[in-house]
Amino acid sequence: MTQPLPDPIRLAVDCMGGDHGPSVTLPACRAFLDKHPGAELLLVGKPEELAAAAAWPRCRVVPASEVVTMDDAIEVALRRKRDSSMRVAIQLLRADRDGNPAQAHVCVSAGNTGALWAVAKVLLKTLEGIDRPAIAAVMPNVAGRFTTVLDLGANVDSSAENLLQFAVMGSALVSAVDGIEEPSVGLLNIGEEAIKGSETIKQAGELLRAAGAAGQLNFFGNVEGNDIFKGTTDIVVCDGFVGNVMLKSSEGLASMMGAFIKAEFTRDWVSKLVGLLAKPVLNRFKHRVDHRRFNGAALLGLRGLVFKSHGSADAFAFEQALARAYDAARNRLLDRVHDRIVATLQAKASDAGDNAANTVAQAA
Amino acid sequence: MTQPLPDPIRLAVDCMGGDHGPSVTLPACRAFLDKHPGAELLLVGKPEELAAAAAWPRCRVVPASEVVTMDDAIEVALRRKRDSSMRVAIQLLRADRDGNPAQAHVCVSAGNTGALWAVAKVLLKTLEGIDRPAIAAVMPNVAGRFTTVLDLGANVDSSAENLLQFAVMGSALVSAVDGIEEPSVGLLNIGEEAIKGSETIKQAGELLRAAGAAGQLNFFGNVEGNDIFKGTTDIVVCDGFVGNVMLKSSEGLASMMGAFIKAEFTRDWVSKLVGLLAKPVLNRFKHRVDHRRFNGAALLGLRGLVFKSHGSADAFAFEQALARAYDAARNRLLDRVHDRIVATLQAKASDAGDNAANTVAQAA
Repeated sequence: MTQPLPDPIRLAVDCMGGDHGPSVTLPACRAFLDKHPGAELLLVGKPEELAAAAAWPRCRVVPASEVVTMDDAIEVALRRKRDSSMRVAIQLLRADRDGNPAQAHVCVSAGNTGALWAVAKVLLKTLEGIDRPAIAAVMPNVAGRFTTVLDLGANVDSSAENLLQFAVMGSALVSAVDGIEEPSVGLLNIGEEAIKGSETIKQAGELLRAAGAAGQLNFFGNVEGNDIFKGTTDIVVCDGFVGNVMLKSSEGLASMMGAFIKAEFTRDWVSKLVGLLAKPVLNRFKHRVDHRRFNGAALLGLRGLVFKSHGSADAFAFEQALARAYDAARNRLLDRVHDRIVATLQAKASDAGDNAANTVAQAA
Repeated sequence: MTQPLPDPIRLAVDCMGGDHGPSVTLPACRAFLDKHPGAELLLVGKPEELAAAAAWPRCRVVPASEVVTMDDAIEVALRRKRDSSMRVAIQLLRADRDGNPAQAHVCVSAGNTGALWAVAKVLLKTLEGIDRPAIAAVMPNVAGRFTTVLDLGANVDSSAENLLQFAVMGSALVSAVDGIEEPSVGLLNIGEEAIKGSETIKQAGELLRAAGAAGQLNFFGNVEGNDIFKGTTDIVVCDGFVGNVMLKSSEGLASMMGAFIKAEFTRDWVSKLVGLLAKPVLNRFKHRVDHRRFNGAALLGLRGLVFKSHGSADAFAFEQALARAYDAARNRLLDRVHDRIVATLQAKASDAGDNAANTVAQAA
């Protein structure tokens, strides 16, 4: 099995990104450092706003004079703000012009998703064998584990090949971060209501089955929307439009249910009293579905590891994103994605060779 | 405004469909009759199993010797079981060969969705101006109202034109059943994460905006997944694959959250005691999110009104589906869909005429 990368693991942190900037990212970095003695942080941003961290151990401030705001257009992030904390942080994942190796193993940002994607793609480029990078995040499931879902919005109109690549990258992610060597993969589909199945999904099913038969993937088969929260498989792959709608509607439903619980426990004084008594129980429930615990989406398929925190993350949530990024880097996520993609491409190539040989044999 | 249809409204009920058959459908019919003095029921199924209802007022048993099971293939429902309760119930929506008018105004079934769709399409045919019928259902929202979503799985790979038709049919449904004359329509899309927007959605947005400008629709604009549960618009239109994933994942998430609440309130004896005290509050919460209250999806775009109950519905849930079907028939949903589609087609035709006139004018 792949050996973990030796410490120190270095994380480049875009300290200015997100809704709250350093007031959230710095306390998160501090808490993260305390729990990860093998980690080093490159804190990217305006030095005057990061002064508090200058004296921390295993830390270095990397100056960047500009900030990509949550509303900045992609063009602004790409062409105008060339000294933004986001861009400088991603740049730290690249070897420099003199051939010195990259300074950081992974980059974490809570900045504007569109801008982060665009800058990461331009600076890092896509891995060979990957047509489209994808965003992967985890959702809680009733089994008490997590389901990793991708793509969550980087791609729309994904092809069958794209979906196969998502499955390969997702498998690498789950094996690196969650330590499951052969995670199971489900293909998101719809049930009997489908009068006419989508051609793309059918083709993707065939590609995934073939990859499973060749030992490249642990393919379970089709799953439906509810299987995400049942935990039927470790990974669920889907088109980015579908994944994004699923993610946002789940957020909406969870917050509606939270609002309803709150409303009922504050409706009158009896309910309030009961609510007070039930507080420890309700807090345990809240902890279980607390999306801050699952913060940290991986941008997969690039020649560098980038993790995206929710823009509205608080210090606790941002720290979780740092921890996921650390685990991914330490367990060589980039190498795993690369190796799995190469293996899948080779299997397909040899499969094509076999088919050609069979055709020749049949013709003879 | 359209006058409601005078009583009696006649519902054809497939009493054998669903997971439980007459043990659920008959008590639901009884409760429904008590609350709807203007309704008459045609109870379709095996007479020996419906004997209990023979003496009920405003009821008539219509015999059917076969039952489409939940696992029957569409072909079986269509070609082999020609005397199924499902088929006979739908048949009651058609004029007979001698030109006698249809016996029922609307049909309700809890049977196998795929089979119901197929039989309904073959027997009833699609309305003129509708390329693809759609399934619409309601979801609760935080505003305490309902959001009607379509399509929920009848179509995959919906075109921009299909999405426009869904919007028109959804508007007719909400005005008929919920009494909102000009319900607002949102087009389900994804946010900033979209590196590349879907062409179909962009085109649909243009068609919807044009229909809004022409006064055919109350088009709000794009919405995201969370807007369904926020209640941003009365109606949300989407491709059936996306809608089905949204629906099923919402069901999965809600049941996961329910399981977590239960687990926490039964974890130890203190929690159990608190749970006992909190029971009235938790019951109010449960009522709010009780999907049985929202049972009854409309199959829209056919030359007849068909409502689909969840297969696992209990008597309370099935009664809700009957009530929704009754409201739809009484408020002339079929005429409303027809009128709106005609108006939209005319507006588009005259728009095309204007464009042609403009082109001629410009050329001159």
